[in-house]
Amino acid sequence: MAKNLTSREDDYSKWYNELVIKADLAENSGVRGCMVIKPYGYAIWEMMQAELDRKFKETGHQNAYFPLFIPKSYFSKEASHVDGFAKECAVVTHYRLKTADDGSVIVDEDAKLEEELIVRPTSETIIWDTYRKWIQSYRDLPLLINQWANVVRWEMRTRLFLRTAEFLWQEGHTAHATEKEAIAEAEQMMNVYAEFVETHMAVPVVKGLKTESERFAGALETYCIEALMQDGKALQAGTSHFLGQNFAKAFDVKFASKEGKQEHVWATSWGVSTRLMGALIMTHSDDNGLVLPPKLAPHQVVIVPIYRGEEQLEQISEVANGLMKDLRAKGLRVKYDNRDTQKPGWKFNQYELQGVPVRIAIGPRDIENGTFEVARRDTLSKEVMPKEAIVENITALMDEIQNNLFDKAINHRKENTTTVETYDEFKKVIKGKGGFVLAHWDGTTETEDRIKNETKATIRCIPLDGDNESGTCIFTGKPSARKVLFAKAY
Amino acid sequence: MAKNLTSREDDYSKWYNELVIKADLAENSGVRGCMVIKPYGYAIWEMMQAELDRKFKETGHQNAYFPLFIPKSYFSKEASHVDGFAKECAVVTHYRLKTADDGSVIVDEDAKLEEELIVRPTSETIIWDTYRKWIQSYRDLPLLINQWANVVRWEMRTRLFLRTAEFLWQEGHTAHATEKEAIAEAEQMMNVYAEFVETHMAVPVVKGLKTESERFAGALETYCIEALMQDGKALQAGTSHFLGQNFAKAFDVKFASKEGKQEHVWATSWGVSTRLMGALIMTHSDDNGLVLPPKLAPHQVVIVPIYRGEEQLEQISEVANGLMKDLRAKGLRVKYDNRDTQKPGWKFNQYELQGVPVRIAIGPRDIENGTFEVARRDTLSKEVMPKEAIVENITALMDEIQNNLFDKAINHRKENTTTVETYDEFKKVIKGKGGFVLAHWDGTTETEDRIKNETKATIRCIPLDGDNESGTCIFTGKPSARKVLFAKAY
Repeated sequence: MAKNLTSREDDYSKWYNELVIKADLAENSGVRGCMVIKPYGYAIWEMMQAELDRKFKETGHQNAYFPLFIPKSYFSKEASHVDGFAKECAVVTHYRLKTADDGSVIVDEDAKLEEELIVRPTSETIIWDTYRKWIQSYRDLPLLINQWANVVRWEMRTRLFLRTAEFLWQEGHTAHATEKEAIAEAEQMMNVYAEFVETHMAVPVVKGLKTESERFAGALETYCIEALMQDGKALQAGTSHFLGQNFAKAFDVKFASKEGKQEHVWATSWGVSTRLMGALIMTHSDDNGLVLPPKLAPHQVVIVPIYRGEEQLEQISEVANGLMKDLRAKGLRVKYDNRDTQKPGWKFNQYELQGVPVRIAIGPRDIENGTFEVARRDTLSKEVMPKEAIVENITALMDEIQNNLFDKAINHRKENTTTVETYDEFKKVIKGKGGFVLAHWDGTTETEDRIKNETKATIRCIPLDGDNESGTCIFTGKPSARKVLFAKAY
Repeated sequence: MAKNLTSREDDYSKWYNELVIKADLAENSGVRGCMVIKPYGYAIWEMMQAELDRKFKETGHQNAYFPLFIPKSYFSKEASHVDGFAKECAVVTHYRLKTADDGSVIVDEDAKLEEELIVRPTSETIIWDTYRKWIQSYRDLPLLINQWANVVRWEMRTRLFLRTAEFLWQEGHTAHATEKEAIAEAEQMMNVYAEFVETHMAVPVVKGLKTESERFAGALETYCIEALMQDGKALQAGTSHFLGQNFAKAFDVKFASKEGKQEHVWATSWGVSTRLMGALIMTHSDDNGLVLPPKLAPHQVVIVPIYRGEEQLEQISEVANGLMKDLRAKGLRVKYDNRDTQKPGWKFNQYELQGVPVRIAIGPRDIENGTFEVARRDTLSKEVMPKEAIVENITALMDEIQNNLFDKAINHRKENTTTVETYDEFKKVIKGKGGFVLAHWDGTTETEDRIKNETKATIRCIPLDGDNESGTCIFTGKPSARKVLFAKAY
């Protein structure tokens, strides 16, 4: 079908960029590296937010809001944190513009800030500066806070959703009385993310731990979930960090324990971002456009009338409106597109491109026969369904499509996960079909770096589940506790 | 009761500041002028957002997201717009930090931006730069978009919620084919705001037009809603602007009309912000703390057990949990506070301070008698209610409290709205009890400025409803089309 969309086989990267724009999800703005999230893309993000927010509240978290700006001095307090983010910080230095003698608008040099402000790349420092005032006693713990916000990381090479200078995300920041509790929280949030990504996004993930070199700047342990895209590259879909007492020490956050002792607090932070949109798009979509799982589709069903003249349209609209009402009563998100400015063929194309899970066409013959033509986006198959069964069938189809997408993604991952025993095999797979590669590693950053330099593959995670037999490192032959997950990554 | 809260009579401004902090709504951060919105305050804001968002979508708007940063050159394109905002803009000039020779972290002067970026104080310019690409034909109109976002205005004197350097808001930006449609949209959104503020916040408002000097920078007409606080000062609760073709011309946004002619688009923008929190707090609260209307209370009912020993607590908890379940089934937000770390008296104080509409206490005698002690926050009255009637009574109480708060606010406004015929009367009222003052005005900015300089009162709006008889200006004696609304304002 003529979507003017580059095929995945021809150029996966180009396919993705074109798809994001043609499906009306997002576009580049006039500000370097910053995107505009268009209404259709934002509607999907809103549904993700709603479900994640529900899960956060269910697990006892509350939302709050902290400043966009971070004084430079706060930012510098945790040494490894500043090392991790300093090179990509947008800095506010002035607070006023003025009109120059030639009439142009310029920055007013008389309005220079005494201390420069960093636009938050993440909020640990400003939040822990606040927590010092909120936490005095064990009674104030645990403190379980989440924030929905925009953050800025001045990345040099950007791609819509996957890597942008500004992005939207949520960041959880929790404080606990004990190390054990903080670790349990970090693990819990990794599981919350995994459950959401698998159940709602229909994207299977591997849960694991980051290696030391891939950890969040300031964390003692980073839990992550890793997904595999159709081109065989990995995408980190969410991270949850056990921060130990690093930030509590940097910001002097202590509490009086039950025994009356002053102790530093234990911390976690965890986040997912609009990057999830990239994972969603790349996992399911095809050369005809976007494919959305029903749970995150702004419209789960679209009804298109096929008619000549007002009279036919009226007849069809009566049936369509009745069906829409019945489907909505079942909780489905349904749109009836009776615009007369566009032809049915154009609409079919559009909804295919935008990934609407089910399309129902109604023509005069359907009215005569009491039938509907139902087209599935995931399989591109069509079926004629009788009036009597339509509501039940469509409702059931939602689960069927959701499950089918997940199964397809699981199968793709299975076919593209390779276990290797030697470095030659490793290089061959990484250079060839790519995908996830499970291999033994000696646990050192040096080996990790050398493999990365030679193959561009990185350790995505040390998986928490699966095969945990010991062996010897494919690169050095030294002992390895278990196989780890390698891949080239986004 | 000992809340350690300054009374309104002693110092209204101090009362407000203390209340915001003691009720756990917000606090100042380490960043000049930027606040931290605490979980309890944020929960109220989330409920406001949810209802407003519902109303926006009901009226056909979609959400989207545009960049935080605006290139300086965009910002300068609409002349009156830049004049209005240039003096309070945070400016990003660099994109990297580095470590200096002495080990301190400094701004990397080698990473200076070619063009400075403004942190959005409002998004007309970046949005209209985008709309140029989205609008080609009348088929693309109307374009009805809303954005939930943070904005920054570098105000010199700030107060929690009322005026902060960073605040949260929504900004609607719409594009229309005709002037008439754009004006109708601006009016519609003023009405949407008024309906929300009156029905949900229980805050009565006057709808009107701003005078030329109080208009939004770049607007042809600004519609507003004005509320009266307990201290007799007015608070602007929301604005909706008819922007004419100003931004369309500045950003060259044209469409092909049905007749095939190229025409500039007509625009509106409209917004409300976390400032509404200030209006909510100041309208209803008293010397004991916050008073919340049930529709925006995170907890509408709190149940507190009064007990000695485990056995009593168990008995009471059984009844309390049953009641909570029954009330939740009616859609109420109920909390059962059985913490043993705090005494009932402390809890009573806390929930009074935090404005929970209804408190239910259950003691051993209530268990015996099959009763509950019900306390209303708005009237500070208590009543014993029998088990049989409790669910029905509490449900009814929600509406009663909501209505009572609105009625009280309406009465307060009536008592503090004065119609005057002379400038002497005017000065006496403004200097004395304050409040809204209706008076004739000759329609010139000069007169408006002189009255403002002499009395500090400004024209809040030219009301759209009410007495519209003509007369003569209290200041100049020149003809006046109708009385306008004066007040000192926040």
